[in-house]
Amino acid sequence: MSAHAVGIDLGGTNLKAALVQRGEGILKRATVETAVGEGTERIIEQIAELVDRMIAASPGSHVEGVGIGTPGPVNWERTTVLNPPNLPGWRNIDMQDALEERVGLGLPVIVENDANAAALGSAYYGAGVPFDSFIMITLGTGVGGAIIYQDEIFRGSTGAAGEIGHMSIDFEGPMDRYGIAGASEAYLGQHFLSRHARYALLTRTDSHVHELAGADLADLTPEMLHDAAEAGDEPAREVLAWAGHKLGCVLSSTINLLDIRNVVVGGGVSQAGAYILDPARAALRRYVMPSLRGHIEVVRETLGNDVGLLGAAHLAFKQRSPTDASSRPHSAA
Amino acid sequence: MSAHAVGIDLGGTNLKAALVQRGEGILKRATVETAVGEGTERIIEQIAELVDRMIAASPGSHVEGVGIGTPGPVNWERTTVLNPPNLPGWRNIDMQDALEERVGLGLPVIVENDANAAALGSAYYGAGVPFDSFIMITLGTGVGGAIIYQDEIFRGSTGAAGEIGHMSIDFEGPMDRYGIAGASEAYLGQHFLSRHARYALLTRTDSHVHELAGADLADLTPEMLHDAAEAGDEPAREVLAWAGHKLGCVLSSTINLLDIRNVVVGGGVSQAGAYILDPARAALRRYVMPSLRGHIEVVRETLGNDVGLLGAAHLAFKQRSPTDASSRPHSAA
Repeated sequence: MSAHAVGIDLGGTNLKAALVQRGEGILKRATVETAVGEGTERIIEQIAELVDRMIAASPGSHVEGVGIGTPGPVNWERTTVLNPPNLPGWRNIDMQDALEERVGLGLPVIVENDANAAALGSAYYGAGVPFDSFIMITLGTGVGGAIIYQDEIFRGSTGAAGEIGHMSIDFEGPMDRYGIAGASEAYLGQHFLSRHARYALLTRTDSHVHELAGADLADLTPEMLHDAAEAGDEPAREVLAWAGHKLGCVLSSTINLLDIRNVVVGGGVSQAGAYILDPARAALRRYVMPSLRGHIEVVRETLGNDVGLLGAAHLAFKQRSPTDASSRPHSAA
Repeated sequence: MSAHAVGIDLGGTNLKAALVQRGEGILKRATVETAVGEGTERIIEQIAELVDRMIAASPGSHVEGVGIGTPGPVNWERTTVLNPPNLPGWRNIDMQDALEERVGLGLPVIVENDANAAALGSAYYGAGVPFDSFIMITLGTGVGGAIIYQDEIFRGSTGAAGEIGHMSIDFEGPMDRYGIAGASEAYLGQHFLSRHARYALLTRTDSHVHELAGADLADLTPEMLHDAAEAGDEPAREVLAWAGHKLGCVLSSTINLLDIRNVVVGGGVSQAGAYILDPARAALRRYVMPSLRGHIEVVRETLGNDVGLLGAAHLAFKQRSPTDASSRPHSAA
């Protein structure tokens, strides 16, 4: 019988679940609104209900385990969420303990930071399949990051590695939400990028974005930049190129430090594709050490947010079979 | 019988050798001028002669192997030097092949990048002993870096990881020798720092540095800044604080990416001690993610260049006993 597991993506707005077949992908999915503000027990209950539904949908009603991707840090043992930033009122919650009791089937429950889970999903099911090591950067509301090294998540000393969004590209640059000057998120995070674009385009009255973004461009989103760029709008393309250059700058530092030269770019803003990735590649050709410039690859993750669910489920597969790195498609080739 | 190995530090000016006793340190050392320009065979011969002298000095004339620290990249197998930047005319040289033949004793020969070797020396004999993971940054003519993760060198995909000196802290900053804008070496490398200090102090005629650095401060070195700072010179302290801030900026990005929070600072400029490290620590308190700020340690490597020789020799010990991580002092505690 093929192996199945449940992946959970615990977001501040939506709580998603998927039944995943190992090596194949998502068989079934469900989404509910996260009951933020109703206490942690209610959310644990929501997760348990989703897990029950996924198990019921699995062949023989059997799954190997449950993996949960969650914002913010988790502990080294992957059992406990530590002060998740978008779940107000949560402190340290031992999800493994709470869920294993509730689900009551002796299923292993593994928790991982959502950016790490997404990278694992990309590694085993997405754009990361060809690479045994790669950097993942996710351009969403925030800028998330993760490192896959030799088929595993590089977790650092406490499990918190990969915060590319909070690496600085300018020690006198704009602050991110933590007060880190010039953090890449302060250029590439959705709100920051939208604000920059708004000011950059306010006086460019020839730009098509004015027809999309309302009076004074108040409703501008990165998606509109992409749409305008696709329609041939030069000012929108310039803004995306500005963002791509910043992306290339932070990736150059990352590559120089890690000697990992494959990059997978995910998240909503990455849908701008070549408008943002080509300028990033140009910056990489200048700012990566000459001896490392030879084999750089920057690709877009096309599975979208599914990599988070896939990677979360994959944590349960990995738990059961710690040596399964060899089962990755690229290794089997 | 205690284990002994030979460490070699292959520099563009000097070629150094040491006989190292495992867990104890350097028993004997020798230095010759590197025969740059006389061809690679001559340098191989120089190394072989030094190895012979070290073996002759060892108890029972027995050593376990030879480790060589070399500038620039080495191949993944640690046998071959790839285009070393300060040995003009060298291409790819299989040092293992050349030396194992010449030494003729069946001794293993391992080659490693000199920054990585220095970090290994620090990990087993120096300021890195208390840490199972740390970042090493060496402030010399250039700015070198290395990552020790779980008692091992983190080597990246091809063995070239750790280039902190070529991470950028300002995408519009000054260029390093590779044209990387705002690279930390373009602030902290000895020539860059001296030049900055010269311009910063030219009009500060009250600075004690004017008594040390000749007309127009033409002979200024970082050492003079340190001497002046020690003597209470405020302008010199300001320049070192400027450098320390830059050091803290690049280390913040490194810590945010790696979740490795111990830092060992080596190299000549690090002798400025607290004048440079305290401002670095202040920057780290601002620019590291809040969740990672709790346990940051920045210490100075006090063994100087000896860590390079110690780490090179240690490569030979590691070769013989791959599980010896447990023999590190901090693990035995």
